[in-house]
Amino acid sequence: MNTEGDKPLKVAVLGCGVVGSQVVRLLGEQSGDLAARVGAPVEIAGVAVRRLDAPRDVDVPAGLLTTDALGLVTRGDIDVVVEVIGGIEPARSLILAALENGASVVTANKALLAEDGPTLYEAAEKAGRDLYYEAAVAGAIPIVRPLRESLAGDKVTRVLGIVNGTTNFILDKMDTQGSGFEEALEEAQALGYAEADPTADVEGFDAAAKAAILASLAFHSRVTAADVHREGISDVTSGDVRSATDMGCVVKLLAIAELNATESGEEAVSVRVHPAMIPRSHPLASVREAYNAVFVESEAAGQLMFYGPGAGGAPTASAVLGDLVSVARNHRQGTRGVGESAYADRAVLPMGETRTRYHVAIDVDDRAGVLAAVATAFATHDVSIQTVRQEGRGDDAQLVVVSHEATDAQLSATVEELRGMDTVREVTSVMRVEGTDE
Amino acid sequence: MNTEGDKPLKVAVLGCGVVGSQVVRLLGEQSGDLAARVGAPVEIAGVAVRRLDAPRDVDVPAGLLTTDALGLVTRGDIDVVVEVIGGIEPARSLILAALENGASVVTANKALLAEDGPTLYEAAEKAGRDLYYEAAVAGAIPIVRPLRESLAGDKVTRVLGIVNGTTNFILDKMDTQGSGFEEALEEAQALGYAEADPTADVEGFDAAAKAAILASLAFHSRVTAADVHREGISDVTSGDVRSATDMGCVVKLLAIAELNATESGEEAVSVRVHPAMIPRSHPLASVREAYNAVFVESEAAGQLMFYGPGAGGAPTASAVLGDLVSVARNHRQGTRGVGESAYADRAVLPMGETRTRYHVAIDVDDRAGVLAAVATAFATHDVSIQTVRQEGRGDDAQLVVVSHEATDAQLSATVEELRGMDTVREVTSVMRVEGTDE
Repeated sequence: MNTEGDKPLKVAVLGCGVVGSQVVRLLGEQSGDLAARVGAPVEIAGVAVRRLDAPRDVDVPAGLLTTDALGLVTRGDIDVVVEVIGGIEPARSLILAALENGASVVTANKALLAEDGPTLYEAAEKAGRDLYYEAAVAGAIPIVRPLRESLAGDKVTRVLGIVNGTTNFILDKMDTQGSGFEEALEEAQALGYAEADPTADVEGFDAAAKAAILASLAFHSRVTAADVHREGISDVTSGDVRSATDMGCVVKLLAIAELNATESGEEAVSVRVHPAMIPRSHPLASVREAYNAVFVESEAAGQLMFYGPGAGGAPTASAVLGDLVSVARNHRQGTRGVGESAYADRAVLPMGETRTRYHVAIDVDDRAGVLAAVATAFATHDVSIQTVRQEGRGDDAQLVVVSHEATDAQLSATVEELRGMDTVREVTSVMRVEGTDE
Repeated sequence: MNTEGDKPLKVAVLGCGVVGSQVVRLLGEQSGDLAARVGAPVEIAGVAVRRLDAPRDVDVPAGLLTTDALGLVTRGDIDVVVEVIGGIEPARSLILAALENGASVVTANKALLAEDGPTLYEAAEKAGRDLYYEAAVAGAIPIVRPLRESLAGDKVTRVLGIVNGTTNFILDKMDTQGSGFEEALEEAQALGYAEADPTADVEGFDAAAKAAILASLAFHSRVTAADVHREGISDVTSGDVRSATDMGCVVKLLAIAELNATESGEEAVSVRVHPAMIPRSHPLASVREAYNAVFVESEAAGQLMFYGPGAGGAPTASAVLGDLVSVARNHRQGTRGVGESAYADRAVLPMGETRTRYHVAIDVDDRAGVLAAVATAFATHDVSIQTVRQEGRGDDAQLVVVSHEATDAQLSATVEELRGMDTVREVTSVMRVEGTDE
């Protein structure tokens, strides 16, 4: 199979930050193993950085460093480009230039893939080169390859992912320590799990990008970040977390991609990111601290879960290097691995038509007829109630209602109506319930 | 890349039992998706069975059934052979004949791979064809592909697997219901989780085959079933399970493959199957009922876990079909996927040199000096004690000792010495402790 003898495989690394420096380190430390696994030595041909004199976590020979990333990827002798700069530009232009120049590409860039993946996939297809991105979703956890290869003979019906470590850390602290959101966020920031501006994590933007990529892979369709319904965790209260505990659940920020039926009976993709209550017996419930996990349901395999560190320099670099070995082998053999698969071309279901369950906590007047009025509000919108629990008396009276599955539109109309009712003082908590059998 | 137009890919299925019938069913039901993913229609060319008129779970057109498996694999037009007969012969001869005749092979045959994998890998290499076997370890759980592809840029240091559903079901019942071994086994048999003759599962033979395959993959070395130290669960008592609970642990049958240092300081592979106590906080501890999970530690990625159904017709068929899609794509392109990687060629460490920890429960005379005598026995063999707990008084006095890590030889010599001591009435339980930080 070796068409080029032991000619070294030349790798250009774009970016030498948290991930890039670990990629460079591992390329050095594992060079013997990598050569054996690829079938040829793997050589760093250059490392593109923003500033030559910036401090970095790894020693890079000065001769390899360059600020001219475009010059590096187009210089003609590069076999594989590893893009770990992140963000939309210049990453996109550099990847496109690399593919046009005959290099295969490994990237960890979730934002770019979620925003404009198809442009990149088409360029890779046209160039006859690989574009691999295991590191873009859930860090070190192998999930891209299992979805597009291991489950290629099966029909995936649902993916539930804890794909953001920052928010999982915060929710875990709220659950185990009884912290409020702000307090848990501060702890996450102090420990380096959350950034000074935590918006991308806390408001679900990071998870939404990953949800789009997972949905595309699982359902062989094109789903972009703009298709993802997104709600973050900043409104989750310690009361919500206690309510979850009361019903044997835990609150997690989930990236959900599932096949739902449209009103006309076709299969469409529902893709969303929001906090949800899941039963404590669910495998995802035991994912603690900043770990990630992706739970996959398919028709033949049943329930699978993939668990591990979802971020960090070395774990992400491990995923990048796994891709690098595959891509390098293909490159040497003049073949390609599995590329984009979008043949199913399924539509994305509007959030309103997505079928979920709601947990609703309502402060009510403690008087006869209140329960009947609340039940009527659910019935009016055709939402069936699974359980109602009354807590407290007098001014503290609260009803906790858990619905059966209904469309999100029916559920939110029900909550809207509850909010307008005389007997309802306040709807204190509304949260979706996922991962149950119904 | 398509070198043969839309010429159908012809598949021969050997065996139409629990797994084979599901493979045939899915090949029919998923034919549209499979064609899109492979790039050509996938056609069943024949199904080899022992008896044409046997009852089976799927309708196979009579014209496809044959009792001449060898004739089927050698007839010249077969692209891929799926072997789901199991056992050593005739499976081995059929796979070798298939490869010689230019077919690629997908197999679920753990026993054959663990006993004589190298013969098959060499035949595949010589023929320039693929030999894939995701279904051979942990059923539907993608673990072969992650180990040989996703982690190809990393250094795996340890694999801990719950890879036998029967024994996990039994141990889970002993833990959650307080059942004894016999009672839990009967429940497993009544529910179809254990066979009438449960030896292969209960005595760890099935897990040992999987341990050999996992060790070969993780450490790029050749490890066979004969290299695996094997102990089953038939001696695990409800007292052991209670002792585990007392120290915050749970008993699991683990398949363990890890890098240990030899006395001369080289890296060697320790591979073993035995019941062990693991902390309840360990991700493997929450694997319930007949589920499987494989926990992987690597230098860069850290801790990963892969969880799912480890057996059953449809889950195993899902893994077979995932391989089939990969193999079929390669076959059409005239390329091969990743084959055997045994370059590291590490030695297998004798069990006596393997470093583990022991939990030892000892019935002792309740008199002064007993603890000192027991501690001396440990010290004599250079085994450091982590904790000692005394339980009961008088005739019920019991010492529970948990050691630090030492070689298995030192630990078993210590237990031997304890058994010979005057003050020791009985060593009631000896179990290894795994999955802790030390």
